[in-house]
Amino acid sequence: MSRFAFTVEFDGRPYMGWQRQAHGATVQQCIEEALGRITGTEPVIHCAGRTDAGVHALGMRAHVDLDKEIAPFRLMEALNAHLRPEPIAILGCEVVPEDWHARFSCIARAYEYRIRNRRAPLTVEAGLVWRVPQVLDSEAMHEAAQQLLGRHDFTTFRSAHCQADSPVRTLDRLDVTRAGERITVQAQARSFLHHQVRSMVGCLALVGMGTWSVADLKAALDARDRAALGHNAPPDGLYFMRADYPG
Amino acid sequence: MSRFAFTVEFDGRPYMGWQRQAHGATVQQCIEEALGRITGTEPVIHCAGRTDAGVHALGMRAHVDLDKEIAPFRLMEALNAHLRPEPIAILGCEVVPEDWHARFSCIARAYEYRIRNRRAPLTVEAGLVWRVPQVLDSEAMHEAAQQLLGRHDFTTFRSAHCQADSPVRTLDRLDVTRAGERITVQAQARSFLHHQVRSMVGCLALVGMGTWSVADLKAALDARDRAALGHNAPPDGLYFMRADYPG
Repeated sequence: MSRFAFTVEFDGRPYMGWQRQAHGATVQQCIEEALGRITGTEPVIHCAGRTDAGVHALGMRAHVDLDKEIAPFRLMEALNAHLRPEPIAILGCEVVPEDWHARFSCIARAYEYRIRNRRAPLTVEAGLVWRVPQVLDSEAMHEAAQQLLGRHDFTTFRSAHCQADSPVRTLDRLDVTRAGERITVQAQARSFLHHQVRSMVGCLALVGMGTWSVADLKAALDARDRAALGHNAPPDGLYFMRADYPG
Repeated sequence: MSRFAFTVEFDGRPYMGWQRQAHGATVQQCIEEALGRITGTEPVIHCAGRTDAGVHALGMRAHVDLDKEIAPFRLMEALNAHLRPEPIAILGCEVVPEDWHARFSCIARAYEYRIRNRRAPLTVEAGLVWRVPQVLDSEAMHEAAQQLLGRHDFTTFRSAHCQADSPVRTLDRLDVTRAGERITVQAQARSFLHHQVRSMVGCLALVGMGTWSVADLKAALDARDRAALGHNAPPDGLYFMRADYPG
């Protein structure tokens, strides 16, 4: 038995999210079925962070145990062939120690949220960014974002469906930068609550529009109440970028 | 009667190209039908450069004559509303002099060709870039590209369906740059022949792979023969970026 780790890129639009569902295609299901066609078994994969419907990944990490002698490069090539024409690509594959776990060994996760700040509708980027027509003050957004850094009870920014035991998380990075019409929010933490990045970005957008002050964002955090949430940003602009592991 | 000029962005994937066709949706048709619903007439639009099926635009320019009193901003807003859900967006609109012509007044056109140089299949960028799995030497591509600058008979790089009177064009810029897996080719000229950018990029890729030398590319140009063409790059990676006008 060998444990293989993958780096996965996918377009989240056609999927109900990462995790297998009773109804609707998911990323996990597509990869497991491709692995099944290669191995003749029913492998189960584990990932660093289960993404929602419509959320993308450029550097998701996942692992699987296989009772099969196969070089990692050949497994990657076979998987990419069997995944066709799904918009899921295996970017890397290597053998890892038996105690390496894509989810439980992960010590940091990085997301990026992409906003297109313009009035005109989207064309080539439809489904790939969040279009915000109101002019956003990205410097105010960045200043407000710094209020959320550190260890807090993020209940306000947590989905009602979140299954985490605790609403306390430590946010290590939340940077807002602008290049022309493009505003990018980069978030990093050991782990995130369900909907946390989208909820933080939605509220930062309210600050960017001038609807909320920096103090309003802080008050929403302090409320520790989902009802204090200003706005949950759509999945379109969210990308799982990177998972870090010790060593 | 007022002449309105537009800046247009579109995703070329769903269209048979810019120009109206007997069968199949085109960008021209979509915009003309949207204009028709606004004005109750059958307006005809003209563009700076007719693009092929699958080719995108981030800054196409076009004009139309309308016998209607309407502020340019309102016309743009109405057009964007009527174009929904087509992936076509009007980014700007202004009134221009009667002798301003999107095609005939244009003094320079700029295209960008986007390559993703990697082995793994595309996901979020499918249809939006050309994936080349072989490792490309972008510096060799740039060096070779400089051979094509200036005034030449570009018959080798011209589609059999090209309707231009002369195969002679003056190429002002053909820069190849790399950022990680992304290779970008930026082309500028007063005007281009049909398929010229895609044909030049296809041959530059052969140089990048080491299949062609810089001298091979020059020989292909000098042959003035479509049969000397090495490769025509797919439409996916091509973007009409900008049209320049006097003043």
